[in-house]
This record gives sequence, structure tokens and C-alpha cells, in this order.
Amino acid sequence: MTSVTAITVRYNETDRMGITHHAVYPVWYEQARTDFIKKLGISYSQVEQLGVMLPLVDLSCHYIGSCTYEDQLEVSVKVVQLTPARIRFSYAITKAGEEKPFHTGSTTHAWVDSASFRVINLKKRLPELYEKIASAVEPED
Amino acid sequence: MTSVTAITVRYNETDRMGITHHAVYPVWYEQARTDFIKKLGISYSQVEQLGVMLPLVDLSCHYIGSCTYEDQLEVSVKVVQLTPARIRFSYAITKAGEEKPFHTGSTTHAWVDSASFRVINLKKRLPELYEKIASAVEPED
Amino acid sequence: MTSVTAITVRYNETDRMGITHHAVYPVWYEQARTDFIKKLGISYSQVEQLGVMLPLVDLSCHYIGSCTYEDQLEVSVKVVQLTPARIRFSYAITKAGEEKPFHTGSTTHAWVDSASFRVINLKKRLPELYEKIASAVEPED
Amino acid sequence: MTSVTAITVRYNETDRMGITHHAVYPVWYEQARTDFIKKLGISYSQVEQLGVMLPLVDLSCHYIGSCTYEDQLEVSVKVVQLTPARIRFSYAITKAGEEKPFHTGSTTHAWVDSASFRVINLKKRLPELYEKIASAVEPED
Repeated sequence: MTSVTAITVRYNETDRMGITHHAVYPVWYEQARTDFIKKLGISYSQVEQLGVMLPLVDLSCHYIGSCTYEDQLEVSVKVVQLTPARIRFSYAITKAGEEKPFHTGSTTHAWVDSASFRVINLKKRLPELYEKIASAVEPED
Repeated sequence: MTSVTAITVRYNETDRMGITHHAVYPVWYEQARTDFIKKLGISYSQVEQLGVMLPLVDLSCHYIGSCTYEDQLEVSVKVVQLTPARIRFSYAITKAGEEKPFHTGSTTHAWVDSASFRVINLKKRLPELYEKIASAVEPED
Repeated sequence: MTSVTAITVRYNETDRMGITHHAVYPVWYEQARTDFIKKLGISYSQVEQLGVMLPLVDLSCHYIGSCTYEDQLEVSVKVVQLTPARIRFSYAITKAGEEKPFHTGSTTHAWVDSASFRVINLKKRLPELYEKIASAVEPED
Repeated sequence: MTSVTAITVRYNETDRMGITHHAVYPVWYEQARTDFIKKLGISYSQVEQLGVMLPLVDLSCHYIGSCTYEDQLEVSVKVVQLTPARIRFSYAITKAGEEKPFHTGSTTHAWVDSASFRVINLKKRLPELYEKIASAVEPED
């Protein structure tokens, strides 16, 4: 499954170079992940209520082009790897009406217990959620 | 007591107008409050550990001039009002080497219980902290 | 004219109090203004291309309640005052399905020249835009 | 040359997980780069005034541990690669009093012309700056 989220660049997301500041992209990834998880039939808020969190382990961003205020973007996200302890998402961002992404990236997260912050085995802790995600994994480009 | 915090403007705090984005100022107020409370002999982290939080009730900002990346600022903060339920801080921001502030503002906060989010009576809950702050109140300009 | 913008709270917009950080609200106001101006038939990007900018003069926020991650919000915005030199917007934010706003605010901006940052007379500089906005002014609540 | 910048975590930099949001780290890298460049005897603001900018090409972050509000951090930065077209910085973040970094990362930037956004040859455009940086390059860990 690939989920696509529409985002319009906010004014405060630009910097004095005139383009979107590079630290904004991981925030857009996160908004796209929120939509992705919702499309699986469960919200990330609900996952947290079940005592599970998904802090980042690794972040990687590739800035091919740039964008600015009021640009209309499409953030594509898919899961490219899932283990009982970790999950890896891949992202591609295009401008509305364009084909080629001007930005790509990926994030790796650990499944942890909310209270202890220790890594858990998601397959054992929330088997249903694990299977849902497993069936949505896509190959990396 | 007036506490002064030195801040250098970060690149991401500017927007494509070339100046600091207006939503950054409340963040600087907060950094100045952190220093203010520490100078009273207790950190805000410790206040939170005592089960008390200080969410905002009102925010007011006056943009007289502007600033940009690498500008060196001094954020002055003082408490101008204290009741058992509320506290009001006042801010003035100047550029290093200048006398007149190019920005002023104020924030009003409620003392609430961390667990219930209900307003508390700070004078009863943490009388020592209340007295410390009370003795530091300054008149409004 | 009152314009309504739908916003879903992003994860990074929360703080460790568990709720949306107070400095995020002016960012949402700005997103709502962007939509408002677009509905008048011109984008703010186009206004900037005409050499006119709208920096803030005053900001005022009233935090009645709070919101958190994934909450679906509606940000209402209207122009409550317009002069050739200034414009004042008023905002009210409600949660989807609720009637009463949990947050209100206002911003006052100056019409300035992009190159000189000097205040201009919008009525003379861009009379058509001035009339469009003038006809959309609503009374303050 | 390795430059070290002291940073205290701001409240708004935390999220409702209770720790610093992952998108804040690239902002701290940038603050550390600002100090690094200043220590070379020129500010990044001055570099921009010379018509040269340093947009990101690649960003990589490794989250080994976490930090939260009021934590006192030390952000170490060094240049690990320099070509006439690109520069690569490496970062390590430790908590005050600790030896081992809880976070590492790197950024690759392109030297571009401010007006055209085209990649330039820094060695030809600003030979003095190029030599200064070249003499400060350190090996990657």
C-alpha cells in the first residue's frame, strides 16, 4: 500500500533562502505516516493508547529540488521493511502536476513500550496490527 | 527581579520575508521564563515534577521592529502579577548594543495540577515557591 | 466573509504537557489567512509578487481549552478592520463536531513595500485588492 | 577543527512522547554550523552577503538515545569532506557530563549562487574561504 497526503507549504516553513527549510521535511513525513496508519484501520493515537510508541532510530533525507510557500505537494509513503522490533518507511514528495519527486527520504523506527521505552516484539504484543502492516509492505524502489 | 537571556537568531527561525517569523517570539519568551525560574532557585522541570504545570491563558505580542539570522538579542522577563491561581510575565527584546526594545509582549498562565489539568491554589500547594515568586514581582512599565 | 480551514494537529505540534504547544496557534492563523486571501480571488504569493507584504504588528491569543495530536480542528478567520495602512484579522478555533471555540485570537498587520519595508497606502497601491477586502470586512464579535 | 556548541533543550522542542521531537536535531546542527563558521573568522551571514548559499543535499540522523526539556547538550561539529562544489559536516551530541554521544548525524550541502541557485566552484569564487575550510577538515570517525 502506498498512501498519498496532500500538503500546502505554510509560510513559516520557509526560511530566508526563500525555500522550505530542510528540517520541515521530517514533519511532513510524520503527517504522511499518520494518514498511512489511519488507512490501515487504526489511528496512531489509538496505537499510543495501547501502550506502544514508535520513536525514530534513523532518518535520511535527499533534497533534489526545493519548494516554497503555497506550493501544493503530494507526500507518498509506504512501509518497505517490518520486523517484530522495527519498521522502515520510505517517502517521495512531488509537486502537484509533476511526475518526478523533488525529494525522497526514509525513516526507521523502533516499536517501544510507552511506559518503559524498551523495545517490544510487536508481533507478540499487537499481532493484529503487525499482520495488517505486514500485508501492506511494499518493495523499496 | 528582571532576568535577561541572550539568544542568537537561528536560521530556521527566519521566513522568506527575510526576518524572524512572528511565531518564534513566544518560544523565546519561554526560554527566558526557563532562565527566570532557575534564577529563583528552582527549575521549571522540578516544578513539573512536583505535579504543577503552567499552561498559557493569554498571549500578547507587539512587533515594533524586526530581526534576522545571527542577530544577537537580549530577552528581558519579569513577573508583573501573581495570584494563587495565575501568573503574568512581561517581556522586552532588544538587540545587543541597543537600548530600546524592538519587541514587547506578555503571557498569562494558570497554575494547574499535572494530572487533572485543574486550576490549583499555588499559595496552598507550594507555599515556598509562591513566596519566592511573590517577592520577585515587579511593576508593569 | 468568514473562511474556514480544516487542520489536523501534527505530532510535532504537541509538547510534553501532552497538548498542542501555544506557539503553534499563530501558525494555524497564518494557514487560515492563506485560504482566506485565496477565496478573495488572489493568492498571498501573488500579493508578494506585486511587491507588497503583510508583517505582523500585534498578535493576541486566548487559550480557553486545549487540543492534541490528530484532533480535527476548524479555524475560522475574518477581517474585522481595514485601513489603507493596516488590516486586522480575527480567529476562532473549534474542534470538529463542537460549537464553541476552545481558542480565539487576532492579528494586526501593516501593508508594507517588499523592498523598503515601509508602510504603504494599499488603497492607492493596489486599489482593486483593497476594495475586494473592504467588501469582505465583518463586524468583530 | 571541531567546534562545540552548548544548547539547552527548549520546552517547545519536546513532543507528547515526553522527549525532544526528532525534527529538532537538524535545527541544532544548523546552530552548531553557525558557530563553526564563525570560528573560521567569517560569519555565515557574511558568506550570504557574498552571494553564496549552502542548501542541503543530504541529511542523516541517528537517534541512539533521547533528551528532554532543560537538558544541557553539547553539539560537536566538524567538516569531514570538502570539494569545490560540496561540503559535508559530521555531528555528535552528548549530554553535559557524559562522554558518549546519544545522537550522531551528518549533512551534505552544495555551494550555490544566491541569485541563480546554481552550483558554483567555491575554490574559484571565494578561494580564501575555501582554503580556510580546507585547512579545518577532519577525518570521519
